[in-house]
Amino acid sequence: MDKWQALTDVPVYQPLVRLAQQPFDLTGLEALSPARMRQYCCSVAGIDLLYATQRVNDEVLAGLQELADQCKLIEQFRQMRRGAVMNRIHGFPSEERQVLHTACRDLFTENPVEPITSGQARSEIARLKAFLDELDNGTLVNSQGHPFDTMIHVGIGGSDLGPRSVYEALRAYGRPARKVFFVSNVDPDDAAAVLRRVNLATTLVNVVSKSGTTLETLTNEALIRRAYEAQGLDPDRHCLAVTGKGSPMDNPTRYLRSFYMFDSIGGRYSLTSMVGVVMLGFALGYELVLEFLEGASLMDEAAEEPKLRQNLPLLLAMLGVWNHNFLGASTVAVLSYSQALHRFAAHLQQCDMESNGKSVSRYGESVHLMTGPILWGEPGTNGQHAFYQLLHQGTEIVPVEFIGFRQSQYCEDLEIEGSSSQQKLVANLLAQSLAMARGQDNENPNKRFTGNRPNLILLADRLTPKAMGALLALYEAKIVFQGFCWNINSFDQEGVQLGKVLASRVLALMQKGGGDHGCDSSVEMALLRTSKMKLE
Amino acid sequence: MDKWQALTDVPVYQPLVRLAQQPFDLTGLEALSPARMRQYCCSVAGIDLLYATQRVNDEVLAGLQELADQCKLIEQFRQMRRGAVMNRIHGFPSEERQVLHTACRDLFTENPVEPITSGQARSEIARLKAFLDELDNGTLVNSQGHPFDTMIHVGIGGSDLGPRSVYEALRAYGRPARKVFFVSNVDPDDAAAVLRRVNLATTLVNVVSKSGTTLETLTNEALIRRAYEAQGLDPDRHCLAVTGKGSPMDNPTRYLRSFYMFDSIGGRYSLTSMVGVVMLGFALGYELVLEFLEGASLMDEAAEEPKLRQNLPLLLAMLGVWNHNFLGASTVAVLSYSQALHRFAAHLQQCDMESNGKSVSRYGESVHLMTGPILWGEPGTNGQHAFYQLLHQGTEIVPVEFIGFRQSQYCEDLEIEGSSSQQKLVANLLAQSLAMARGQDNENPNKRFTGNRPNLILLADRLTPKAMGALLALYEAKIVFQGFCWNINSFDQEGVQLGKVLASRVLALMQKGGGDHGCDSSVEMALLRTSKMKLE
Repeated sequence: MDKWQALTDVPVYQPLVRLAQQPFDLTGLEALSPARMRQYCCSVAGIDLLYATQRVNDEVLAGLQELADQCKLIEQFRQMRRGAVMNRIHGFPSEERQVLHTACRDLFTENPVEPITSGQARSEIARLKAFLDELDNGTLVNSQGHPFDTMIHVGIGGSDLGPRSVYEALRAYGRPARKVFFVSNVDPDDAAAVLRRVNLATTLVNVVSKSGTTLETLTNEALIRRAYEAQGLDPDRHCLAVTGKGSPMDNPTRYLRSFYMFDSIGGRYSLTSMVGVVMLGFALGYELVLEFLEGASLMDEAAEEPKLRQNLPLLLAMLGVWNHNFLGASTVAVLSYSQALHRFAAHLQQCDMESNGKSVSRYGESVHLMTGPILWGEPGTNGQHAFYQLLHQGTEIVPVEFIGFRQSQYCEDLEIEGSSSQQKLVANLLAQSLAMARGQDNENPNKRFTGNRPNLILLADRLTPKAMGALLALYEAKIVFQGFCWNINSFDQEGVQLGKVLASRVLALMQKGGGDHGCDSSVEMALLRTSKMKLE
Repeated sequence: MDKWQALTDVPVYQPLVRLAQQPFDLTGLEALSPARMRQYCCSVAGIDLLYATQRVNDEVLAGLQELADQCKLIEQFRQMRRGAVMNRIHGFPSEERQVLHTACRDLFTENPVEPITSGQARSEIARLKAFLDELDNGTLVNSQGHPFDTMIHVGIGGSDLGPRSVYEALRAYGRPARKVFFVSNVDPDDAAAVLRRVNLATTLVNVVSKSGTTLETLTNEALIRRAYEAQGLDPDRHCLAVTGKGSPMDNPTRYLRSFYMFDSIGGRYSLTSMVGVVMLGFALGYELVLEFLEGASLMDEAAEEPKLRQNLPLLLAMLGVWNHNFLGASTVAVLSYSQALHRFAAHLQQCDMESNGKSVSRYGESVHLMTGPILWGEPGTNGQHAFYQLLHQGTEIVPVEFIGFRQSQYCEDLEIEGSSSQQKLVANLLAQSLAMARGQDNENPNKRFTGNRPNLILLADRLTPKAMGALLALYEAKIVFQGFCWNINSFDQEGVQLGKVLASRVLALMQKGGGDHGCDSSVEMALLRTSKMKLE
């Protein structure tokens, strides 16, 4: 196999640097012509990407196509889906794993591209279906014979942000008689606030940890189990486990039911595995979960298209590289014009920044370019009344990815002054995109808008389970393509280790009262600064 | 009055630029000495700022003190609190207003520094107290004689993010029998989701809009009023108004009760005015609201201290300027080790970015430096399992402001493996701070941490109403000091206007079916792209 190349090593890198010296001017009177707006559009799996408001022209797009080709992005993506060991650092000890989150949803053809993992996924899904059927038909009830109407989902990081954001996104389709709560933070107030709001007797507790050793999750599980015992209930009859085979949590006697995830699926990419779908199955029912997985699967397929302008995830990835590495933007904002997506940016923040916040290549060399940007965002129109001031007139240029839908979820709308709320929502989205791109002059310098602030719009008909699946897989593939392009390993997270090690040392000091001389002084001093801390 | 100077124009600017070429190295073995950690600490109003993990030394701190002096930051802050017209662009039409959010809480001395506005605030607070008393003693009930147990707070931007974040922060102290929901987005699904969850008959609707013309808020108010009418209830008996005197919403016949805010209080600084405290009074009761205001008031007082190292808000501001303008960081992350603060960063994002995301000075000139950074954040320890990878090993340097507390709110904790959850939480916070500063070498390049990632810790005993007030005022003052330093107007928001104008044009086109030739082609094309949109 060829050694993969980094962005800076491919022939088209320098030509792109030159093109970036005079990027397309979006503020010209004729810049956003109807022809441009028609051409700069890509539609896949029910999602339209409108990118006329990016600082690119046909020449730049041709360059980005070359970049994708010279970095062999499609080839690498195909290898990944088919089971290549992509999670590795060549020449150094590393995780040495396959990367097969895509196999979790490759369930809709006779011949999945990686049959082993898809087979495992299929069998877990069948076990989940059996479990959900038992809940539905009343075979599985609590010790008083009552149905379970509540779930507490306990997890953190990849076992929390993704499931939570999709639950919020699809809540409109939830079964009315079922509620889900989430506990993630080791902050004891997090669990305490939820425990006050649920009836434990009719509650299932879904404990999710791939390693079965996640400190926060085990601590919260223990807090919740204690609450069951305090009420004379047996937690083993209420807790579910989602964990890796052979982990310390893989102990079916302690759990009402256990579901498995596999080594080839990283936490932040695990939403379409049992990590997400046990809770989603409880909340939405089995059929809607399948629609969600199908949407993701369609997007995965589409990501293998070699032509940049017809490959939505690749296009999103390359436009991001253009803004970040060639035009110099440090961050990217994901702004959803949908209240239901209010936590989606937080999930993407993890998925993107944990994947691509790296400084070492897949061969252990220091990278000589900027890798992953800082991703952030809040829903519109709310953001318009908050931080959009900086987006329009600040000194930092923030590339924006808008997400919108033509129709609402609940269809409970009202026409006021001749337009519905949904129309106002979409009108605002379009207006913001144009305002950022075009800008506007004014004789009062404080009312001037320089424009040329690159942005794009992802637009779908409605935020359905299928659209959500497609949107999720779109961003997962975008992140993976960018990681390939920067020649980094997007699938490990060594950067979280040092904090864990130091936390154990600080804790050990706390337990000993702070006076251990075996510890170095900065840890000790840090502790002394908090010496007013009391045990409760 | 002297013309205020910008950062780049003051004598100490160039010396600071030189110092920034070799900033203090945090990775040295002796760098974080006990002496340094003791000295680089500032305690005000119950909050400790620990900043040994910033890339500063005594020389830099002396330079930053000079910077504060040469920019006359304390003098400007004092003028602001005493009613100077700080919201203006000299030589151009602008808002020409005083900036008196601090007067809203200057209620605890005989002689408030700006007696007129504090007098108005005092009288509104007295009216609020009377209203809350009526709710408490059963004088004010619904038409069936039942007490009101729910509030829907309707607002957006400054009328939403601040109130919502503080409600979440102080929920642990909330009256058990009272619930609050928030509706902000023009997305009709936002109101629909809340309306499904409340009993309108026992619900108060708190409609908050200073101008009384905010599109989203009026639309949501209309949606909710329609829901009342559909149930045969009179919305006028359930709705409260918080608005400016003389606004279109200042119509007491339509509202059960009306409260006022004043021109000198900008939306994003309005949390301690009626905008925040009507809802907080309902949720927490009058006494806790006073504690909240008192905490803010204490910090305002403390912000007038001329010595940098004893002035917590000024120090926070100057360290931010050092990282942003001299060390080149584009963003700042606010990471709260407290689940209750999970929306605080979203409020700060608005307050900071809408205030300081500007490109024009207070004299209408282009600024020649970076103004406000991008502010973002999520709670720890959750973030440790998400984006911290980039904070530790990414190519972007992100200055971090940690916030933590020695004790939890609910005091429902559990000792596991010898430590409580609260101890684990604080241990993690300290460990992250040290890990980012010190870094760690390793023979495996993928396990290397370069360190020198500047961060600081804000630490208080417990997240009480008083601590929350102090924390809020701390950040408000930080933002104001930075705006003064960059010589920009932190109190207007012209950058939101263009989007509003374009949104009206897009909406007008939508209503006409898209065929109006009076509109320019890019607006029209944007609309055509969404032509599949259906009216519901």
